[in-house]
Amino acid sequence: MKKIITLGEVMLRLSAPGFARFMQARHLDVVYGGSEANVGVSLCYFGLPALHVTRFPESDLGKAATQTLRSHGVDTSEILYGPERMGLYFLENGNVHRPSKIIYDRFDSAFAHLKKGMIDWDSVMKNASWFHWSGITPAISQGAADVCLEAVVAARKYNVPVSGDINYRRNLWQYGKVVRDVMPALIESCDYIIGGETDFENCLGITANGFEEACSKVMKQNLAVKKIAITMRECISSSHNKIEGVVWDGKKLHQSRVYDLTHITDRIGAGDAFMAGLIYGWFTGKTDAQTIEFATAACALKHTIEGDVNTSTADEVENLVKGENIGKLLR
Amino acid sequence: MKKIITLGEVMLRLSAPGFARFMQARHLDVVYGGSEANVGVSLCYFGLPALHVTRFPESDLGKAATQTLRSHGVDTSEILYGPERMGLYFLENGNVHRPSKIIYDRFDSAFAHLKKGMIDWDSVMKNASWFHWSGITPAISQGAADVCLEAVVAARKYNVPVSGDINYRRNLWQYGKVVRDVMPALIESCDYIIGGETDFENCLGITANGFEEACSKVMKQNLAVKKIAITMRECISSSHNKIEGVVWDGKKLHQSRVYDLTHITDRIGAGDAFMAGLIYGWFTGKTDAQTIEFATAACALKHTIEGDVNTSTADEVENLVKGENIGKLLR
Amino acid sequence: MKKIITLGEVMLRLSAPGFARFMQARHLDVVYGGSEANVGVSLCYFGLPALHVTRFPESDLGKAATQTLRSHGVDTSEILYGPERMGLYFLENGNVHRPSKIIYDRFDSAFAHLKKGMIDWDSVMKNASWFHWSGITPAISQGAADVCLEAVVAARKYNVPVSGDINYRRNLWQYGKVVRDVMPALIESCDYIIGGETDFENCLGITANGFEEACSKVMKQNLAVKKIAITMRECISSSHNKIEGVVWDGKKLHQSRVYDLTHITDRIGAGDAFMAGLIYGWFTGKTDAQTIEFATAACALKHTIEGDVNTSTADEVENLVKGENIGKLLR
Amino acid sequence: MKKIITLGEVMLRLSAPGFARFMQARHLDVVYGGSEANVGVSLCYFGLPALHVTRFPESDLGKAATQTLRSHGVDTSEILYGPERMGLYFLENGNVHRPSKIIYDRFDSAFAHLKKGMIDWDSVMKNASWFHWSGITPAISQGAADVCLEAVVAARKYNVPVSGDINYRRNLWQYGKVVRDVMPALIESCDYIIGGETDFENCLGITANGFEEACSKVMKQNLAVKKIAITMRECISSSHNKIEGVVWDGKKLHQSRVYDLTHITDRIGAGDAFMAGLIYGWFTGKTDAQTIEFATAACALKHTIEGDVNTSTADEVENLVKGENIGKLLR
Amino acid sequence: MKKIITLGEVMLRLSAPGFARFMQARHLDVVYGGSEANVGVSLCYFGLPALHVTRFPESDLGKAATQTLRSHGVDTSEILYGPERMGLYFLENGNVHRPSKIIYDRFDSAFAHLKKGMIDWDSVMKNASWFHWSGITPAISQGAADVCLEAVVAARKYNVPVSGDINYRRNLWQYGKVVRDVMPALIESCDYIIGGETDFENCLGITANGFEEACSKVMKQNLAVKKIAITMRECISSSHNKIEGVVWDGKKLHQSRVYDLTHITDRIGAGDAFMAGLIYGWFTGKTDAQTIEFATAACALKHTIEGDVNTSTADEVENLVKGENIGKLLR
Amino acid sequence: MKKIITLGEVMLRLSAPGFARFMQARHLDVVYGGSEANVGVSLCYFGLPALHVTRFPESDLGKAATQTLRSHGVDTSEILYGPERMGLYFLENGNVHRPSKIIYDRFDSAFAHLKKGMIDWDSVMKNASWFHWSGITPAISQGAADVCLEAVVAARKYNVPVSGDINYRRNLWQYGKVVRDVMPALIESCDYIIGGETDFENCLGITANGFEEACSKVMKQNLAVKKIAITMRECISSSHNKIEGVVWDGKKLHQSRVYDLTHITDRIGAGDAFMAGLIYGWFTGKTDAQTIEFATAACALKHTIEGDVNTSTADEVENLVKGENIGKLLR
Repeated sequence: MKKIITLGEVMLRLSAPGFARFMQARHLDVVYGGSEANVGVSLCYFGLPALHVTRFPESDLGKAATQTLRSHGVDTSEILYGPERMGLYFLENGNVHRPSKIIYDRFDSAFAHLKKGMIDWDSVMKNASWFHWSGITPAISQGAADVCLEAVVAARKYNVPVSGDINYRRNLWQYGKVVRDVMPALIESCDYIIGGETDFENCLGITANGFEEACSKVMKQNLAVKKIAITMRECISSSHNKIEGVVWDGKKLHQSRVYDLTHITDRIGAGDAFMAGLIYGWFTGKTDAQTIEFATAACALKHTIEGDVNTSTADEVENLVKGENIGKLLR
Repeated sequence: MKKIITLGEVMLRLSAPGFARFMQARHLDVVYGGSEANVGVSLCYFGLPALHVTRFPESDLGKAATQTLRSHGVDTSEILYGPERMGLYFLENGNVHRPSKIIYDRFDSAFAHLKKGMIDWDSVMKNASWFHWSGITPAISQGAADVCLEAVVAARKYNVPVSGDINYRRNLWQYGKVVRDVMPALIESCDYIIGGETDFENCLGITANGFEEACSKVMKQNLAVKKIAITMRECISSSHNKIEGVVWDGKKLHQSRVYDLTHITDRIGAGDAFMAGLIYGWFTGKTDAQTIEFATAACALKHTIEGDVNTSTADEVENLVKGENIGKLLR
Repeated sequence: MKKIITLGEVMLRLSAPGFARFMQARHLDVVYGGSEANVGVSLCYFGLPALHVTRFPESDLGKAATQTLRSHGVDTSEILYGPERMGLYFLENGNVHRPSKIIYDRFDSAFAHLKKGMIDWDSVMKNASWFHWSGITPAISQGAADVCLEAVVAARKYNVPVSGDINYRRNLWQYGKVVRDVMPALIESCDYIIGGETDFENCLGITANGFEEACSKVMKQNLAVKKIAITMRECISSSHNKIEGVVWDGKKLHQSRVYDLTHITDRIGAGDAFMAGLIYGWFTGKTDAQTIEFATAACALKHTIEGDVNTSTADEVENLVKGENIGKLLR
Repeated sequence: MKKIITLGEVMLRLSAPGFARFMQARHLDVVYGGSEANVGVSLCYFGLPALHVTRFPESDLGKAATQTLRSHGVDTSEILYGPERMGLYFLENGNVHRPSKIIYDRFDSAFAHLKKGMIDWDSVMKNASWFHWSGITPAISQGAADVCLEAVVAARKYNVPVSGDINYRRNLWQYGKVVRDVMPALIESCDYIIGGETDFENCLGITANGFEEACSKVMKQNLAVKKIAITMRECISSSHNKIEGVVWDGKKLHQSRVYDLTHITDRIGAGDAFMAGLIYGWFTGKTDAQTIEFATAACALKHTIEGDVNTSTADEVENLVKGENIGKLLR
Repeated sequence: MKKIITLGEVMLRLSAPGFARFMQARHLDVVYGGSEANVGVSLCYFGLPALHVTRFPESDLGKAATQTLRSHGVDTSEILYGPERMGLYFLENGNVHRPSKIIYDRFDSAFAHLKKGMIDWDSVMKNASWFHWSGITPAISQGAADVCLEAVVAARKYNVPVSGDINYRRNLWQYGKVVRDVMPALIESCDYIIGGETDFENCLGITANGFEEACSKVMKQNLAVKKIAITMRECISSSHNKIEGVVWDGKKLHQSRVYDLTHITDRIGAGDAFMAGLIYGWFTGKTDAQTIEFATAACALKHTIEGDVNTSTADEVENLVKGENIGKLLR
Repeated sequence: MKKIITLGEVMLRLSAPGFARFMQARHLDVVYGGSEANVGVSLCYFGLPALHVTRFPESDLGKAATQTLRSHGVDTSEILYGPERMGLYFLENGNVHRPSKIIYDRFDSAFAHLKKGMIDWDSVMKNASWFHWSGITPAISQGAADVCLEAVVAARKYNVPVSGDINYRRNLWQYGKVVRDVMPALIESCDYIIGGETDFENCLGITANGFEEACSKVMKQNLAVKKIAITMRECISSSHNKIEGVVWDGKKLHQSRVYDLTHITDRIGAGDAFMAGLIYGWFTGKTDAQTIEFATAACALKHTIEGDVNTSTADEVENLVKGENIGKLLR
């Protein structure tokens, strides 16, 4: 069966338990996550087959990361291993007026040492039904950027639909290239994009009056792009957000209902849950209106789940879209 | 001293810690609970003596369940033991848009193997001041249904007041009988009932326009029944509910204030806390208006307490009724 | 470098985990705290040097308390040790309609056995830039009251500014003296006070119509007092409070914005965080308007942090004052 | 049914988890225990009915202690409550070359405030089949000593057999009396004693050449005493001890086999487990040789169980005596 | 690539933490295990591909069990799901003189409801390089016994080597058949067996003077059987065992060195680790002498690992065989 | 007061809880440690003042590491901070036949970015009573090696005694220099050394017949060196070691008693505890025979304590030397 391919770094996340501050923590909770793998994991819970391409250290940490992906149902047969270190990040959970904090420690990781030619993209893409990447990968290292471009080119070659989550992060991009040298070539090969106005300004130099105009300009520049989606997040506090998803189909903006996230458990990976919802919707032939409702509901559910990944099934998401089971005790 | 008698299965509850999903849990928290025993435990905390009748496995799990009841002050001297298994259930706590989930694993338990004649109800009811049962017991097995009927008959014989929590659960009732074969005989012996319109429709075939009309019809059919109470629950989300209690006294509906349960800790057993509050009110001679306020406040407090049982004292409930101590730090 | 001196008992706090009730707790979480030391700790996180004066048992519990203070950066070189016991308190965290509970067990502690002359206040105050005490100390024992008065007198002698948190607690004051025998002499040496109308009535016999009038009368009686501050707390529930800080400068009331504390993690020590914010503001030359905003923001942040002490830095507080980072994920 | 009566203080034990030192502990594990109550609890697990007499604070800590005793099956109906504090102790578990440490904090407890006349010993002893006390109680306070003597006198009056565990602890005995003023009157009323040579020297002024001669002298002085038992403990390290039990029947010394305790889990309460084993043996009519084997096996099993109390059943102890199940996996 | 096939029930194991007794446990640790799956998991860590055949409930518990197997690398593509319950067992860890205890609760599980024809053994065995079963499966239910026989027959048909772990457990076998009705047909199809004298007596009616004679008789009766192995375990205590492995090759007994297991962490699954070691040795062409050393070393290592499965790699086992790294800190 | 100065990296240690393997760990326990800081911490517990020189990241991880050192009493006023990462290592605890494993992740840390001139060694050494370094520091980076040499030179200049723990680790030394280019200059400035024959061969090219001859040769080459000490460790298993300390005083070998470490809790930092014991002995004027007994007893005690550092006091070590308190319960 053809698989949805995701490419990206997976990090060891070490988070202070509950609402403890870093300096209070006597142990750190362990999960593994990374934007693109989170998408693949979520798709597996939705019932679609996913395969994640990454590179891990050969140590037990790399094996543990592989085991985690495999437990969720992700095909790990294309994962590479090298002598370098595990990328990791430390998380302190915020609460009400206190923001959450992340300390990244991912430089010089096994993934950053990916090099052109290490992955046989022809063989991967022959068995692919979709390819997803994010703007984090080309920001990590020249090798990672090269591999991402290889993947996109191979996907095009085998007519595999491509989605990209722009996700521009200024703190990355330290290997010499600037974002506008790299991203345009990647974006122009995408069918589906998650991105907002500042992403487009930073990556493509596009300025616009509002999201719709920005999308129009992106699509004019990048003819392959068919849909552009984004979540709008209103942060009342660290514990209480509101979210709404929108998708531009080239002509029209489809908006989801607004979810009132009154008691947030974990917002890491919420954008990835949204992305997975979009892919699921488009892949399974939903309309854009249905897709944006599904994706936003998936995103809302992610906020109730500990860790980086959304473990909700498609049924669970559909039930939320239908407004069923809210506040219920399912026996 | 005469005791309030409760009859029912007590299960081992295994719950995923915090908001972990079943698949994330590396340990499960252990408590013991069951609808009727929860009522008895709560009454002990209110200062009334209670005795629980049930049947446990002879294993250490049955002993641990007995120890738990005994620690709360419940008289466990009439508990039976047999070679069969412990009933158990698995709980996953929901949060905001994610519903809670229960996986029952209670079939073929030591309680389900209860048989007519195993319990000397004459000796039990001679020393009883009240008897409470729920609709879960007759749903479990023919033997459990028979024993429940024996108990109700014996209670009547010794003029012991009887309360019943209808609590119709479709998933149970798998031993061959249908609910309307069994429940009418039990309900007609009750003085006090908790139940709602769908309970009455399912168990008694009564359809009505609204709760008050339903209650009138129930009372017409069942002359012993003097009061019918229920909680109305508005589920804004898994984390936020509103509750209000009402009691129909045959002529008039008494409504409690509404409690805004903005941060739910554990709603399992909230109905049992309400039931215990009703019994406490009626047993100690409160008016219906006072009783419904007390019972609903007890129900509200249960939502703040981990586990199946309400460990609030009568004073703590009264303070909430009076609006005292809200948000206080009692030193 | 001159240090901010705080004097007071530090207790071992033993709290039931999460929302467990005392009777459910199978372990108790350990922190160390006390009103005045909490102020000193918070000042260290703000970047000001603090030294805490107290008396601990010589046991490992006293050493552990010292280690905790030292870890936060507090100078512990003036701490005394004796053969008596550790003061301690037990905490049960409330939730929504259930109030929090504290069981104090602090009588006859090493601190209560402080005696006049044990501390060389001349040498301490020569190197002091501020002195802070609270109304808890003179309530503990005759010796503690004597030592507090010694400290205030020595501070005056060396022109060290003095702040006092009136904090009248009826349950203390069991050693024979009544509050009005002791507090007036302490209050009259203060430059800065935290207190409210009932504090002033209890400690000084001042009755007034509202906070402003009360402050005027206090200042008329106590000419050294330049500022009087207090937090107003609206308790919607144990989980949800609103707070606002005010300071009277002798002529005018300065009010902070209102903080909506929708998901309280731990409110113990919130008043101490406020006090530390006031001292920081006044010490570093902020205006009263700035000071009250800073102090109230500090107080708001404390509610999001587990334990007795506010570990927020001055930058974190300033960011909240500016409204930055709210609900953010700081990467 | 007549009950075995035990009298003594029950303390809240707060122990550092695992092998953590006090200064490392971020939480403390909670159990409740006290020498004489430990004996009563163990007897309940052996199948004999026990009732414990003590005095607790009225706080939730006193209630939690009561709940713990009740959960084990001990009758708590004679427990008194007062306004004073809970006695408590802190425990750090040693390991190999590192000794265990206890910090007592039990002065001025509710139990220490026991006074003559508070307990109706006539009514207690009418329903008693045995009475057990230890040398800790008369060491705590004059009131506790008085109550202990009242109990012994009442036991004699109703022909209730009396056992005493001498257990001399120099650190207690701070209320003015010296041990030889108090203990002789208590010991002379005993039928059964646990004690060793230094106990007899300290309490009775008896010096002797070896245990047998000491026992002979004790029995000559105290005609009621019929048996004297003791455990011999060889401490190879904190993790590895050897124990052997002996009993002197007035003429002959009976020795148990030696148990090699190679991996000690918790040795607190091992002497109490031994005492309970002796009472069980003598009460149920075993010979002295059988009794000492049973008691020493019980003592050995206690070392494998966390907390103060031995939860082994009589069958489990008998199986160890028979050498069955050693190292087995009982399915 | 052809896979090693294992067939058997996988249960949810709920174990009291550390050395807590069942009645002390406030949570239970969760792992998943079953004799045959444990063999498959261990083989995956040794680097051989394994596929496990079983039947789970459709609930989240069944999914979690699948995830666990998959995380270890086991192919779960042939797992079936049904509406019935999860088999489970409760474990209390013994220590020194206290035996470990298991409470099984596995009757009527989804696995017990396996029926002839549910699994397409032809397709499974076409891609098999080995088949392993144990005596637990035919003991569970008629259906499970039938399916086990189907598997063995299919394996023979496709010339797949078959190993069987006799593992006779009297408590199982409650569905009507007796062991000698069922086991002979299964054993006669085996190439490799783990079993001891009492197994052979119970299952085949063979009595003999010692293990070697018993093996000779088994091989005479069952011509396919080429090797019979067993571990000899000396139980000094629950914490200290000695083990030695032996294999009979039809002519000669090969004995491994003796391992002194002085501090046992978890002995569940030690026999399965031994079995996996045997399969690894025979499958990869080791001599019997090498194989028994490898298998016994694997068994020894399992005792140091928490849970049911041996996660040691082949390198780790080889290092122990060579005596390398003992007591080392591998940096 | 002059301080004992230690220089070296302090890492965040992340260890799998109990005996969990890396792949089983769902959280990792957090401590901070490093060879030289461990020595300083231990000296603080012995009652000597210590100051640690290191460089941390400016992040909360660096602050938390500082807080930990400060809590133990170490003077942290000379610690530097930079923008780089925290060095860290992952630890899996072995057991019996399973070795412990460490995964280092310390390259490119803030400490590795130390540069010549960053530390004002003149001002540090003016207030120093001792200087201690280890062979780990010069192995980390050119900058670290330079700073270590600066320190040794400054110590000589101010007549501060110098101790060095050779501790040669092949895996480090990746920055271009080989060990023999760097170590001789450092060793020749030492008064006191910990090292063994392979250390001397690797670092100094000295080959010898046994420890005594090696020491003689080292001293001939390095005239400042007055004492050379080492621990001899016999590894029976990961859980059971024997240790013995020896010191060569230039003429004679002093040997300590042998400690039988039958149940090891944590052996990390045992060599540092030994080193601290040596410094304590020499610094306080003990004889070599006394010093080696003290140091080896300290080393033995470390094995019973969780984490990297020995928190034993000098009294606790002395008691072990005297053989007091072994296996006791100190009340």
